Amino acid sequence: MRILGIDPGYNILGWSVIEKNQTIVDFGVIETSAGKRIDERLMEIHIALASIIVRLKPECAAIEKLFFTKNIKTGMDVAKAIGAVILTLKLNDIGYFEYTPSQVKQAVTGYGRADKIQMKSMIKSIFKMDAQPRSDDAADALAVALCHSLYGNRIK
Amino acid sequence: MRILGIDPGYNILGWSVIEKNQTIVDFGVIETSAGKRIDERLMEIHIALASIIVRLKPECAAIEKLFFTKNIKTGMDVAKAIGAVILTLKLNDIGYFEYTPSQVKQAVTGYGRADKIQMKSMIKSIFKMDAQPRSDDAADALAVALCHSLYGNRIK
Repeated sequence: MRILGIDPGYNILGWSVIEKNQTIVDFGVIETSAGKRIDERLMEIHIALASIIVRLKPECAAIEKLFFTKNIKTGMDVAKAIGAVILTLKLNDIGYFEYTPSQVKQAVTGYGRADKIQMKSMIKSIFKMDAQPRSDDAADALAVALCHSLYGNRIK
Repeated sequence: MRILGIDPGYNILGWSVIEKNQTIVDFGVIETSAGKRIDERLMEIHIALASIIVRLKPECAAIEKLFFTKNIKTGMDVAKAIGAVILTLKLNDIGYFEYTPSQVKQAVTGYGRADKIQMKSMIKSIFKMDAQPRSDDAADALAVALCHSLYGNRIK
């Protein structure tokens, strides 16, 4: 049972594919072209995500829920990217689950307000990685997939 | 030159297809299933929009820009729907233009703060309709397509 983890973003989207037994298949980021129009950038996300799905064959997806902070314009662009991600998942017949940042933190560290350093350290340890993931977005994508591997049974 | 007008929405999305010379080809609304999950609803929008594109063959699209009012949760869902719409347009190789509500009102009535009654009355008159469109969303979709038929040359 492979889980696709997604830390949604418009500029950079973190992704991971893990086995339910908490081994990593692969992970990375999708970076969209900064100078391009939004339709091009959503298409880049769509194509990259579809190719990950074809290559790694995840059976379900876990997405980190977007929380609003200050910048509504940024939040709107991220929401548009989430719309494109959700449609891409559905077009590929992959069901998804959403988790709040604090659910993800709780699952990974046992503490809902853990910071990035604690999160990365736990990610490295749980997945038995040689080094911490360099990208925050990829680390978050690993974390949300891990969260689903732990919580998923209870929810489904 | 056919223009697809879209008044984006998550529950109800208004659409229109007009000729650049301001005759109506068709218009209506896409209503998503209230009880269903967002992935199902974005898929409903995707399928309905793709079928309109195949049937009526618009060459470009005009979308009314989302403005934030009170409810951020609603705004986020509409932004997700816009993401699905933009991706659907791109997958069908249709370029799009965005117009603010006041640009649309200005184009249709000559007054950027026109109300719904003035807008519908002008829509009926410009398109020589027998009656005003009943749906506000379809009327807005006709208005944004009309706006593009007037402004489009200047922008492209």
